[in-house]
Amino acid sequence: MKIGILGGGQLAYMLSMAASPLGLSTLCYEPAVPACAARVTDVITASYTDVEALRAFAQQVDVITFETENITPEIFSILAEEQHKFAPHQNALLVAQDRLLEKNCLNQLGIATAPYEAVDSLASLTEAAHKLGYPCVLKTRRGGYDGKGQSVLRSDEDLSQAFASLGSQPLLLEGFVPFSMEVSMLAVRDQAGTVKTYPLVANTHHQGILRESSAPFEHSALYQQAVHAAQKLLDHLQYVGVMAIEFFVVNDQLVANEIAPRVHNTGHWTIEGAVTSQFENHIRAIAGLPLGDCSARGYSYLLNIIGEEPKLQPLLNIAGLHYHTYGKAPRPQRKLGHVTLCHDDPLQLEKMRKQAQALIGV
Amino acid sequence: MKIGILGGGQLAYMLSMAASPLGLSTLCYEPAVPACAARVTDVITASYTDVEALRAFAQQVDVITFETENITPEIFSILAEEQHKFAPHQNALLVAQDRLLEKNCLNQLGIATAPYEAVDSLASLTEAAHKLGYPCVLKTRRGGYDGKGQSVLRSDEDLSQAFASLGSQPLLLEGFVPFSMEVSMLAVRDQAGTVKTYPLVANTHHQGILRESSAPFEHSALYQQAVHAAQKLLDHLQYVGVMAIEFFVVNDQLVANEIAPRVHNTGHWTIEGAVTSQFENHIRAIAGLPLGDCSARGYSYLLNIIGEEPKLQPLLNIAGLHYHTYGKAPRPQRKLGHVTLCHDDPLQLEKMRKQAQALIGV
Repeated sequence: MKIGILGGGQLAYMLSMAASPLGLSTLCYEPAVPACAARVTDVITASYTDVEALRAFAQQVDVITFETENITPEIFSILAEEQHKFAPHQNALLVAQDRLLEKNCLNQLGIATAPYEAVDSLASLTEAAHKLGYPCVLKTRRGGYDGKGQSVLRSDEDLSQAFASLGSQPLLLEGFVPFSMEVSMLAVRDQAGTVKTYPLVANTHHQGILRESSAPFEHSALYQQAVHAAQKLLDHLQYVGVMAIEFFVVNDQLVANEIAPRVHNTGHWTIEGAVTSQFENHIRAIAGLPLGDCSARGYSYLLNIIGEEPKLQPLLNIAGLHYHTYGKAPRPQRKLGHVTLCHDDPLQLEKMRKQAQALIGV
Repeated sequence: MKIGILGGGQLAYMLSMAASPLGLSTLCYEPAVPACAARVTDVITASYTDVEALRAFAQQVDVITFETENITPEIFSILAEEQHKFAPHQNALLVAQDRLLEKNCLNQLGIATAPYEAVDSLASLTEAAHKLGYPCVLKTRRGGYDGKGQSVLRSDEDLSQAFASLGSQPLLLEGFVPFSMEVSMLAVRDQAGTVKTYPLVANTHHQGILRESSAPFEHSALYQQAVHAAQKLLDHLQYVGVMAIEFFVVNDQLVANEIAPRVHNTGHWTIEGAVTSQFENHIRAIAGLPLGDCSARGYSYLLNIIGEEPKLQPLLNIAGLHYHTYGKAPRPQRKLGHVTLCHDDPLQLEKMRKQAQALIGV
């Protein structure tokens, strides 16, 4: 079986590495050169507007998945003849791509979110801000990631500038959520409808970019809420594959922030830190194979490498450190790789964490 | 850094998968098509007698290692200009390739072996057999693997036929070792001379081919003997990389059977079952990086897939089972892949082992 992946970045790279031992090959479709995934698999280098190349790609593969959410409706319409091959189904992507549809979907299922209002003019923004109160966050409905496409509003004075900077597209205003921490849940659903969930992960962001994740975050009440939400959401979307749901923690309650219909940075620790990695489970799900065990193996800590690569030698002296470079050129704020630290003893892991942070310069 | 690998089979495949996250690329040299490693890395398809292709290969890489022991002196002489790049050094390979040199080396270092005699005629075979007694095993000095190139002698009547079948090449006669079990040690030495050792592995062979390995085999006295032997041997050979040493267990004493100057089938469980896999540690060593932790993570059981591939679906229903196919065409007695089972509880692992054995048909 050949798995087509729209996108050829680090997620496609790690998906391809997970597919190979199962006897499955991958073919990526990526406009940018060089593609991370090209280190280990075949990549078609072509634009997402190249109709012929997209069709040729679709015809060569048995199932199509994606590592990026930036798949436009135009791409789906080009691939319409092959759309039965999509896993997860494109509907999940359409929901995740639009913050309004996403929040509507979550609320419809009884999954708590921040209060929100759709905004399409300065007048509707002003009205929404007065309804939700300050501070609040103006976001583009589509296309934002890693903190881009967002603006925090603290008073009426911020309204016009924020609208001017983002208002050429549909927007969403979100009420302030006084969260104490951020967690995420990776869940996977197979073609028969079985849902499995990884332990909760505690995450830290810096300048809108994920910096570190710790797993498992052990809190049984929150875990039960997350499992309940994941089960409802994945079933509702008839989802196949891995999905990430990011939550705020507010007074022992989870408030869903956003969903990612794909393998996710907060799940990279699962390569060494779980029985079956998120990458292998996504591949198993979309290939029609049974899901693997999502249990954690001890405690794990993931630290992203952002902007520039650290010296490898001293890092590898930390026993239990696993280095993953994506082979990308350095650039400020760019995710270049990650390290995962694993240990059965959380106190020992804490020591290792400090060593790694000192070397990577957190 | 680009690592050249002589050979493009499953060992080269798994070495390449381990090199990539460290930011190292590989280039394999393999006459046979298709090469396993071609699934994830670049492979030069050319004969080992193709002088130009070998030189071009050597010039493209920063260090040369090998996954096969069948590297002839001719190949080394072709690559003579680049021989400083070899890791491990070719001397280790020359010793491992010749059972007489190998046993001489081990004995010189005080590492026990079976009694042995060099044989080059029917007369010297007869003399050696009478000296060592029956049963004894006649082996080719070079080139035998997976039980090939061997003949068990039980009486004088077997001498002439055994000699006729093997005697066109230098031979070695080995005395019988009344062993209770077979174990192996994977050891790795870096460029600074640091040696690290994996736990002992208990192995079962069938028809001369490794069938299963269990790790760690916990016996502190035997482990200490193996560590002592590995340290002496790797230091003596100024070895860089992973080496496997196979031992017989005879009355709580280890008797060295043979060495393999490379990553080894009895170490495949380390991908999931050890903190750092043998493949990553070999790559780290030859690339001049510090060695990773060789500790086991719980208990592991490795079962080779030989001759034909089993159905994937039922196997993947065993939680904690990791499937590794090498992408090779089925053929009787051919190693097509392996599964590794891991669990923290040895009793639970035993249950999983029986399930896997039933499905794979041991």
